[in-house]
Amino acid sequence: MLLSVLYIIGITAEAMTGALSAGRRNMDWFGVMLVASATAIGGGTVRDILLGHYPLGWVKHPEFLVITCVAGVLTTGLAKWIIKFKGVFIRLDALGLVVFTIIGTNVGISMGLHPFICIVSGLVTGVFGGLLRDLICRQTPLVLHEELYASISVIAACLYLGLLEYGIDTLPTTIATIVVGYTLRMAAVRFKWRLPNFKLDSEEAVH
Amino acid sequence: MLLSVLYIIGITAEAMTGALSAGRRNMDWFGVMLVASATAIGGGTVRDILLGHYPLGWVKHPEFLVITCVAGVLTTGLAKWIIKFKGVFIRLDALGLVVFTIIGTNVGISMGLHPFICIVSGLVTGVFGGLLRDLICRQTPLVLHEELYASISVIAACLYLGLLEYGIDTLPTTIATIVVGYTLRMAAVRFKWRLPNFKLDSEEAVH
Amino acid sequence: MLLSVLYIIGITAEAMTGALSAGRRNMDWFGVMLVASATAIGGGTVRDILLGHYPLGWVKHPEFLVITCVAGVLTTGLAKWIIKFKGVFIRLDALGLVVFTIIGTNVGISMGLHPFICIVSGLVTGVFGGLLRDLICRQTPLVLHEELYASISVIAACLYLGLLEYGIDTLPTTIATIVVGYTLRMAAVRFKWRLPNFKLDSEEAVH
Repeated sequence: MLLSVLYIIGITAEAMTGALSAGRRNMDWFGVMLVASATAIGGGTVRDILLGHYPLGWVKHPEFLVITCVAGVLTTGLAKWIIKFKGVFIRLDALGLVVFTIIGTNVGISMGLHPFICIVSGLVTGVFGGLLRDLICRQTPLVLHEELYASISVIAACLYLGLLEYGIDTLPTTIATIVVGYTLRMAAVRFKWRLPNFKLDSEEAVH
Repeated sequence: MLLSVLYIIGITAEAMTGALSAGRRNMDWFGVMLVASATAIGGGTVRDILLGHYPLGWVKHPEFLVITCVAGVLTTGLAKWIIKFKGVFIRLDALGLVVFTIIGTNVGISMGLHPFICIVSGLVTGVFGGLLRDLICRQTPLVLHEELYASISVIAACLYLGLLEYGIDTLPTTIATIVVGYTLRMAAVRFKWRLPNFKLDSEEAVH
Repeated sequence: MLLSVLYIIGITAEAMTGALSAGRRNMDWFGVMLVASATAIGGGTVRDILLGHYPLGWVKHPEFLVITCVAGVLTTGLAKWIIKFKGVFIRLDALGLVVFTIIGTNVGISMGLHPFICIVSGLVTGVFGGLLRDLICRQTPLVLHEELYASISVIAACLYLGLLEYGIDTLPTTIATIVVGYTLRMAAVRFKWRLPNFKLDSEEAVH
């Protein structure tokens, strides 16, 4: 219940960030809807394809796809207004990251997969939407050289699995994971926490 | 029967446009065959993966893949000649778009999916080949900022579903959809119909 | 047995080349692990998704994913040292190409697919990892305009299928394919064998 509500908030917010990226590439409405949908539900789609978990969420629930398309098109009209609320978006995005991660981890658990794969399942759900957005819009993916993002997803998935393993009920586990993950993500943005970078000069590379 | 013949014409024409794009990137024959095949049968492949509709068309009918590879390699020799017939290609591409859309919509219907997902299935089949071509060749996808293309696919899928729903037989429905879709696409190219664009300055974007 | 050992050597070497590419794009550790894993096990993943061959290798054997992530991160520390052994990498990469191709061809055979699709299965396994690496790192894929690479994969797959068809046992067939494929690849690098290129001026293209 809680996750469903948060999921819908999450895909709406992610769809809007996707639409803004499409706008920077001067795409038409179809492009906006495509990038918005890929950003919002691409992570879950990639996860389900990797795990062979059919039918995909949006095939079973077409309304999710309607939400992301509508959110994308609305963004084209509200862009100047949305941009003023940048802070709200960073918060919604942080929430979405943790909620998507929990949902993805749950899919892995429900399929009886190895805990390591459950974490990967959560991670893919959490971060691949943004990765797809940046690939389609031809930007070097932000998730790969910005503040901690994927790491938060991994930490949230580990915490979630650990608490469940410890015998805690699903609801408190979910709430604790959301609170910790959201707080960590906002702290990472605030204090610019980053993973170490790996920098190699072009002429040094093997290929 | 009719659709099969048109399908083969469609994948041949699409393979040739893919090969021309590969040529602009100075690829070798393998690259040409890859881009030609991705352009021609990539849309159906993405659709089948999204819907979990196995085996893929070209796995069951390897001859389709042979056709696209041969068409791609032939294009390398005939490029100067092909380019003179640009008008023919635009017509074949318009035909391919509508035929691919109908085939994709049919797959959705045969799997008993929601009408909205059937339309998405037609759309993915119609436009993802060109999208893959442009991603591999590192161009901002044409379909996202050119004359109506995806929209024609959606209109054709809706018309097709609507006529069937109305009780019209498959053959007249197919012919009517092809005629209307083809005419609309050619009109869109002729009169430069476009969807509204969404333009956002880079510094204004949230991310 | 033999193939398993060679497979692990292959994914380790490929993960390292992926990590070096990520380093040229100045990615963080997560990016390094992502590109390393995509390079090493992306080919098999794409193959399994195209063939509907579930569960994926690394979902069943999470240790493969652990190996590629660890190899990627180790590479960040050892890059300057690794680059000195460029020759070793070219050899390991040649070995990996043939081993991956044989494994992919075997998957096609075990699924009872058409020989042409078995060859495609070997080809996808052999070359799509490098293709994914170059797409994520936004380079025009090397495989598409360098020394013979995909062609070696096709030749190896044909030889492997041919010898098996001829009634030769699996072990000698595997060894012969590895020897011939590896030798051809090294010769291609040495003598700069290439497929014909297809070069088309931009203004000449249809699209």
